[in-house]
Formats: sequence, C-alpha cells, structure tokens
Amino acid sequence: MEKTLVFGHKNPDTDTICSALAYANLKAKLGVHAEAARLGEVNKETQFALDYFQVEAPVFIEAVPEDVKDVILVDHNEFQQSVSNIKDVRITEVIDHHRVSNFETKEPLYFRAEPVGCTATILNKLYKENGVAITKEIAGLLLSAIISDSLLLKSPTCTQEDIDAAHELAKIAGVDLDKYGLDMLQAGADLSDKSAQELITMDAKEFAMGNAKVEIAQVNTVDASKVYELQSELEEEMDKAINDKGLDLFLFVVTDILNNDSEVFARGTGKDKVEEAFGASLDSNNRALLKGVVSRKKQIVTALTDAFTK
Amino acid sequence: MEKTLVFGHKNPDTDTICSALAYANLKAKLGVHAEAARLGEVNKETQFALDYFQVEAPVFIEAVPEDVKDVILVDHNEFQQSVSNIKDVRITEVIDHHRVSNFETKEPLYFRAEPVGCTATILNKLYKENGVAITKEIAGLLLSAIISDSLLLKSPTCTQEDIDAAHELAKIAGVDLDKYGLDMLQAGADLSDKSAQELITMDAKEFAMGNAKVEIAQVNTVDASKVYELQSELEEEMDKAINDKGLDLFLFVVTDILNNDSEVFARGTGKDKVEEAFGASLDSNNRALLKGVVSRKKQIVTALTDAFTK
Repeated sequence: MEKTLVFGHKNPDTDTICSALAYANLKAKLGVHAEAARLGEVNKETQFALDYFQVEAPVFIEAVPEDVKDVILVDHNEFQQSVSNIKDVRITEVIDHHRVSNFETKEPLYFRAEPVGCTATILNKLYKENGVAITKEIAGLLLSAIISDSLLLKSPTCTQEDIDAAHELAKIAGVDLDKYGLDMLQAGADLSDKSAQELITMDAKEFAMGNAKVEIAQVNTVDASKVYELQSELEEEMDKAINDKGLDLFLFVVTDILNNDSEVFARGTGKDKVEEAFGASLDSNNRALLKGVVSRKKQIVTALTDAFTK
Repeated sequence: MEKTLVFGHKNPDTDTICSALAYANLKAKLGVHAEAARLGEVNKETQFALDYFQVEAPVFIEAVPEDVKDVILVDHNEFQQSVSNIKDVRITEVIDHHRVSNFETKEPLYFRAEPVGCTATILNKLYKENGVAITKEIAGLLLSAIISDSLLLKSPTCTQEDIDAAHELAKIAGVDLDKYGLDMLQAGADLSDKSAQELITMDAKEFAMGNAKVEIAQVNTVDASKVYELQSELEEEMDKAINDKGLDLFLFVVTDILNNDSEVFARGTGKDKVEEAFGASLDSNNRALLKGVVSRKKQIVTALTDAFTK
C-alpha cells in the first residue's frame, strides 16, 4: 500500500505535531499506511509533551518525497503554511480549525474543519466516530495540543468542546490537567537561549490579507520585558524578513501566559494598520501592549484582515 | 435569533434543493433559526420528489437579503456557483461533496466535505451524529438526492456509503428504491417542453480551470437524438453564453440515463481540450459520444482540468 504522509504547518507548534502523530495513529488503525511528518523543529513545549508521554517526534521533511502521492493536512489548510510542493501532491484529507483560504483541490476530498480551539478536539471526536479507543499516549498528545492552543483553557478561542475534551483526555492520560498544563506551558515559555532570529521564526505564520502579505510570529513567555531586551536584534531580523519575503507587515507577538496579555512589535509599511486594527498607539519602539489579546487566530488575524481589506 | 439561510448552488438540482431543506430541518431541530433557500427554478425531477413527499420548495432568492448575516452552503463551495453577494456574508458552515476551489473565509467555520456521491449521504450521517431522528419526508428528500446524483446508484461517483444510505432511507421513506428511483429520473428526463436556452442553463456550472473559464451544462434524457434536434439553436445559445461570460469552453452534456453514456457538444476556443481530455474526436457537429461517462464531477471536470492545466 502506498504511504500517506500526515503533517501540520511550518514552524510547528504542539497542536500541529501532536495532531499529526495522533491522526496518523488513527488512520493506521483504520488500515491506511499513514505516517506522521513535521515541517520544522520541535519546540520546547512540544518536546516536553513528547518526553512526558514517551513518544518520538515525527520525521522531518522539507518537501513531500517523490514517492509519496497522497497527503493529509492537519491544523492548517493555507498553502503558504504547508510544504513547498503542496500543489504537486494529492490532498486526500484536511482536519483543521482555522479559516479556509488559499486552498484548492482538483478532486473531492474529506475536509473536516470545525470552529473549535484545537485540531486535537476534532481528532478526539474522530476516534469516537470511528469506534477506536484512545491510548494513554495518544490521549496525552491530544491533551497537550489543547492546553497549548488554549493557553490552559483560557484563550477566547477555547470552546466548551475543547474544555470537555481536555478533561476527558486528562483522565485517560492519567495526569492532573492544571499541574501538567502549567508545567508544559512553562517549558515552552523558557526563551532564555533563543536568538532574535529564532524568536521571530519559531512560531511564525504568513497570511494574505487583501493584497498585503503579513507575517505574524508569536512566542509565549512569563516575562515580556526579558524578550524585549533583544529589541534592536529583533528589529534587524524582522526588517530582513520583510525585505526577503516582500512583506507589508511583520508583527511579533509576545504573549504573557500568566497575565493573558500580549505586547506586540510591528515593522513594515503596514504598521499603521496595527494601530487601526487594535485602536492602540505604537510607542517610540513600535510596540504596544494589547490587554487580553492572546489569540493570533481569533483576535489578531481577523482584526488585521479587516484593517487591510476595508 | 437572527436567521441563517441554508442554500445550494445556482441552477439547483435535486441534491441541492433537498439537502438545503434537510439541513435547515436538522439545524432547526438543533435550535438554530435556519431557513432553506434556492438560487433558481426547481426542475421537474426535483418537483417530482417534492410532490411525492409533499414538501414545499425552499424560498427563491437572487442574493442574500440585507438583514441576513449568516449562511450555510450545501452541495457547493465555489463562489462562482453561489449567490452574487457571497463575499458580503458570513459562511458559518459548508456541507459538500465537491472539490474545494475558489472558496475562502475570514474566520474559522464548520466545513464538512466528504468524497461521497451526494451531499445527502453526509446529512444522513449528521442526523445520526446529532442524535436526531429522520422523518419520512426528510428521508424521502435525502433518498431522492442520492438517486439523482448517482443515477440510481450507477454513477462512478456512487460509494458504498451512498448505497447503504439509500437503502436505509428508502425504508424510512416507505418506497421501493428502484421503482421510485426510475419514476423520479424519468420525470426529470422529460425535456420535451424545454427551449435550447433552458437546456443549456437548467443544470449549468462554471469552473475555473487553470486560466480558462469553462461552463458545463448537463441534462438527463432517455433519447439524446431528440435533444440534438435543437442542434443549431443550442449552438446559438452556447455561443451567446461564451460571448457574454467570456468563456473559453462551453460543454453541453446529454446523459442517457438508460445506457449510462453521454453525448457531449463543445463550443469555444477550448474545444480541442475536449478531444485531448477524452481521447475522442468531435464530429462535424462538434459532438462526441463518451461511452460510460455520466459524472460531470468525477469524469468530466477532472479530465478537462488536467487538459487545461498541463
């Protein structure tokens, strides 16, 4: 049987890695020769989860290998967030919780997107719909994904379905949700060894907004001021990315996981759109504190898209 | 509560009308203020089904009314097949069984597409997933949609899921599948009162294929030669559509529901692509008999898209 690769987006986060592993596991149990892959480095938060539940990271790929024809996308659908040769392969399935954009297929496919906080919440449902029991390890991975995407169930993207799934999965995984969740988030919030270049790429996504090309990078921390000690290096790296990729805006989002706020830093000709989108003034460092803003998807992308398209 | 409109594609067929009615019914039972709508005339086949199960046709709309903000699309996702103001409304859900193309949203949504023969087959599943019992009338509508899209379970688009759903639904609807199915298809295949203009619009869909704009109209019949008595009028109407819409190709597909063949008629600068796609020569009337070809989606759109994009 030909191999089907299952992978999430570039600059993988915990949901992308864990959902790829979990869905490859489910497809394998349903008789598909499925294998998980990843498009980038495993971050510290994800590594914490993989170590805790003793699961190996998926194999790294830059592009889909020539001998693989079929792929399944999890946790993304926009082509610019996927492998470079996505247009050369057949997408047989998508499991996602984002907006649909810059995506198309030649043939019908299984496309399951739901407006929930995390892909793993949908996968928890798919295990049930297919009558497949979830192991302790898989439950741990799905739980970690939900904790990550919802900042321990506190993000505005978090729905009742995510909360219910998290409690269910914590039970199967045999962990205390709050204790395990905070330990995992704090493992990911340790940015002490990161260079400016790493900070702006470790969880970066590119978006088309009207005619504008916008990159938004996000990091979690327990102390934003520490991150902004690298202000001038960050500025340099962001400007370099703007030049290299022809971006209209680069927005760096530093999210405080204890206070649930974000201090953003904007560069590029489109930075006035940030002020417009959030009704906030950028200070002399081109930074602004956005109170209560933690979700790139629900609070940042939507507001910026409005500003760029109106 | 604000109203959510549920509708299928332009030039509605039986799946589009019946799935809109059924899904509005399911959403209503789940507490949503949902109402079915249609974007065009009800054809004879669909009318047969509505009359048989004594259900009224959905309300006709040309565009989404100003006071409606949320819509649900069934049986389509490509914007050119939808209402004219689709970009001005919020699409909260899509239930479909076609390829995904020319579709995007600003926000996450519930998007459920499956590679089955008919939208109604997915709806049958959604009733079960939501624990809502299907009434005789709704079962009749869903069954009619499956019979229509699968040409009584004979189209290559028909999957085991469609077959199982059809048998299940026939039982609830209290009809003999084969007898009811043939009666319904024959009601739709009566084209005796149709003008050439009606024939090329009653089930027409527009597609983007590479840089080409292609319109494909399909009618079912028990005698293709009858339809082609209108050859010169059809030619005139097709050329008019090509000019008006800037099409590269207009393909008219006359499908024989008894022999499961199609005699196609091609106009436009892209007509050589038809020969390329099907390895068939167009005769002096620009027509060709395609043996065993009955599915626009699975046999025609895919082959033509390949020819236009390679």
